[in-house]
Amino acid sequence: MNISKFVAPEIIFGRGSLSQLGESVVRIGASKVFLVSDDGVINAGWVDQAVYYLRAAGVEAEIFSSLTTNPKDFEVTEGVIRYREARCDGIVAVGGGSPTDVAKAVAMLAANGGRLQDYEGINKISRPLPPMVIAPSTAGAGSEVSQFTIIVDTVRKLKMSIISKSLVPDIAIVDPELLKSKDAKLAAATGIDALTHGIESYVSLAATPLTDIHALKAIQLISYNLVRAVADRLDMEANANMAMAALTAGLAFSNAILGAAHAMTHQVDGLIDQHHGETNASILPHVMEFNLHTCPDRFRDIAIAMGKDVAGLDTLAAAELSIEAVKRLIADIGLDKGLAQIGLKEEFIPLLSRNAMKDACLVTNPRSATCEEIEAIFRKAM
Amino acid sequence: MNISKFVAPEIIFGRGSLSQLGESVVRIGASKVFLVSDDGVINAGWVDQAVYYLRAAGVEAEIFSSLTTNPKDFEVTEGVIRYREARCDGIVAVGGGSPTDVAKAVAMLAANGGRLQDYEGINKISRPLPPMVIAPSTAGAGSEVSQFTIIVDTVRKLKMSIISKSLVPDIAIVDPELLKSKDAKLAAATGIDALTHGIESYVSLAATPLTDIHALKAIQLISYNLVRAVADRLDMEANANMAMAALTAGLAFSNAILGAAHAMTHQVDGLIDQHHGETNASILPHVMEFNLHTCPDRFRDIAIAMGKDVAGLDTLAAAELSIEAVKRLIADIGLDKGLAQIGLKEEFIPLLSRNAMKDACLVTNPRSATCEEIEAIFRKAM
Repeated sequence: MNISKFVAPEIIFGRGSLSQLGESVVRIGASKVFLVSDDGVINAGWVDQAVYYLRAAGVEAEIFSSLTTNPKDFEVTEGVIRYREARCDGIVAVGGGSPTDVAKAVAMLAANGGRLQDYEGINKISRPLPPMVIAPSTAGAGSEVSQFTIIVDTVRKLKMSIISKSLVPDIAIVDPELLKSKDAKLAAATGIDALTHGIESYVSLAATPLTDIHALKAIQLISYNLVRAVADRLDMEANANMAMAALTAGLAFSNAILGAAHAMTHQVDGLIDQHHGETNASILPHVMEFNLHTCPDRFRDIAIAMGKDVAGLDTLAAAELSIEAVKRLIADIGLDKGLAQIGLKEEFIPLLSRNAMKDACLVTNPRSATCEEIEAIFRKAM
Repeated sequence: MNISKFVAPEIIFGRGSLSQLGESVVRIGASKVFLVSDDGVINAGWVDQAVYYLRAAGVEAEIFSSLTTNPKDFEVTEGVIRYREARCDGIVAVGGGSPTDVAKAVAMLAANGGRLQDYEGINKISRPLPPMVIAPSTAGAGSEVSQFTIIVDTVRKLKMSIISKSLVPDIAIVDPELLKSKDAKLAAATGIDALTHGIESYVSLAATPLTDIHALKAIQLISYNLVRAVADRLDMEANANMAMAALTAGLAFSNAILGAAHAMTHQVDGLIDQHHGETNASILPHVMEFNLHTCPDRFRDIAIAMGKDVAGLDTLAAAELSIEAVKRLIADIGLDKGLAQIGLKEEFIPLLSRNAMKDACLVTNPRSATCEEIEAIFRKAM
C-alpha cells in the first residue's frame, strides 16, 4: 500500500490580486486579523494597501512587524502574546518567507498552546488553527501554500522544521506586483531558494506525479526567468513567472518534502544570519552531485526542464548537465560563493552535520547519508 | 487586471486508500453520511468495504443507489428527501461521475433549498455545503476534485452545468483498486471523457499555468495508458495512471472550465441516454478541427504530450498531429462512431445547437461559435 496525500490552499493569482484580501478574510470568517509583515514591505506601501482592502471589507488589523531575516523563536513568542492581547480571530501575512512563517507559527501556538519545540517534526499539531490568508512579497519560500513553518531555535542555534497539514493557509493571494519592491539581491536569493525547492522535491523519495508536475514547472520557469527578474526588477512578465515558480515549487515541496540541501542549510541559517537562499546557492550543486547516481533519470528531466539539449546523450551524461545548468544560473546572478565566503567557520562543520542528521528533510533525500558524508559535502561547499 | 483562481480538495491517492474513508469523514466532522453509489459498484463489493471503514470509525451510512447513466433531476430530488429523512450530516460518494454528481447536487439542495435550475451556471450557491468525501470508481469524470455537477433536466432534455467553488469536495480518495471492476467499454468511454477534459481545458480561454500542467499531464498519461487499461482491466499500473489522469484532468477543467465539445455533448446526453464519454468520442475531433487555427501552438503541445514527433514541422502541421493522435486513440478502443450510430437523429440538431449556445462551457471555447457553426460541427460528427 503506497498512499500519497496532496494538499493545497485556495490560490488567487495575478497582478492586482491583493485587492481580494478583504473579501477573502471575510469569506473565511475573520473580523480582526493579526497582520504579520516586515519593515521593507511596510516601507514599500503594501501593508497600507492591505489595510485599506481589509477596512473596506469591515476587517480590523493588528500589525506585527518586528522581525529579522531568519524568523526566530522569541519573535513568535512575542507575536502570540500580541495576538492574544489584541483578541484577533484570524491571521494575515503580507511579506516574504519570514513574516509568513512567523504568522503560521503564531497561529499554531495561539490555537494549541505550548512551545514551538513541542511541534518540531511531522504532524504534531492537534487543534485547528485560526483562519489564515497569506500574500507573499517574494518569489521564493513558497510558504503561502506549504505545510511548513521553519523557525530558528536561538538556544540550539538551528532551524526547526515544523510540518503539518494544519499549517497550509486557507487562501494564498499571489500578486506579482508585490515583487517589484524586492531589490536584485533579494530577488536572486529567493529565486535560488525556489529552485532548490523544485529540485529537492523532484528527486525526493516522497515525490508523486502530482508533485512532479509542479516541481518541473517551477524549475523550468526559474531557468527562463530568474536572470531576467534579477536584471530588471520591473520586468513584470519575469516577476509573474517567478511568482508562479515559487508557488508551484511550494506545492511540490509541501507535499513531497525536501532533501539534504535543506537539512544542511537549516543548520547554517540557525548559526549565521545569512539569507536562506544564499546558503542554498552554496550547498545545492554539491548535494546534487552527491545524489546524482541514485536517480540519474530524474536529474536528466531537470536538465531538460532547464533547457539543456540531451539528444544523443546517455542518461548519466544528460543528468550531469542539470548540475552544470544550476551552477551557471547561480553564477549568472552572482551567488556563486562558498560557505566560508558567506561567514561559516570550518570548526562548526561537525556540529552542523550532526544536527543535519536529525532534520526532517533528510528523510526524503534520494540517497541516504552518513554524518561523515554530510560533513564531506559541507567541506566541498566551503 | 487578470486574476485567476485555483481550488483543489485534499487528495488521498493510492492503492488501498479507500481504507482512509472512515478517518477522513470523522476529520471533516460528520457522524452519519449519505452514501451515494450505483448497483455496479455495490455488486463489486466496494460499498460494503466503504461501510466497513466508516463503521470502524464510528460513522453510520445511509445508502442511496437508484441511479441511471446520466444523473437526472428527479434522482437528485429523491436524494434530498432521503438525506433529510435520514438526518445525515455529511455526504460520501463511492462510484463514477453519476453518483458523484448526484451526491454533490444533493449536498447543494440540502443546504440551500430551492430547485436545481436555480443554480444553473456559475457561482450561484450561497450557503456552505455539508462536508463531502468522494471516492471515484471510474477514471473519467474528475468530479471528485471539480467545481462542477452536471445533472439532466428531464423536462428540457438537456444537461445543466452547475459550477461553484462550493461543489469542490473536502477530500477526494482516489483508490485505483476500485477501477478493476469497470468493464472494458466503461474504461474506454470514461477515459475519452478524461481526455476531452484535458484537451478542452488546455485550449480554454481561462487556462492558467496551474491548469496547463495538470491538463498536459492528463493528456500524456491517457495517451500512454488508456489502450492498456482497456485491453487488460487488471493492469494495475495502467489503472493507477488512468486514475491520476482523470484526477489531473479534473483539476484542470475545474479551474479552466471546458469548451464546445462539452457544451455540445451536454445536449446530446440529455436527449439520448448514451455514456457521456462515447458522445465525447464522436464530437471531440471535430471540435478540435474547428478550434485548431485559433491556438495552433496549444494543439502542438497536445501533439507532443501524445508522443508525436514534431521535429522539423511548422506549428500548424504539428498542431494537426494532435487531431490525428486523438482519432487514432479513439479508434484503437472502438469508440470511432458517428453520433447517428449512437442513436442521434439528425432532426434534433437545430434544437441541440440552440441549447449548446446557452451552455456555460461554450464561453471558454478558444473560438467563438455561431449557432450555425455548432450545427455544422454536429453534422460532421454524425
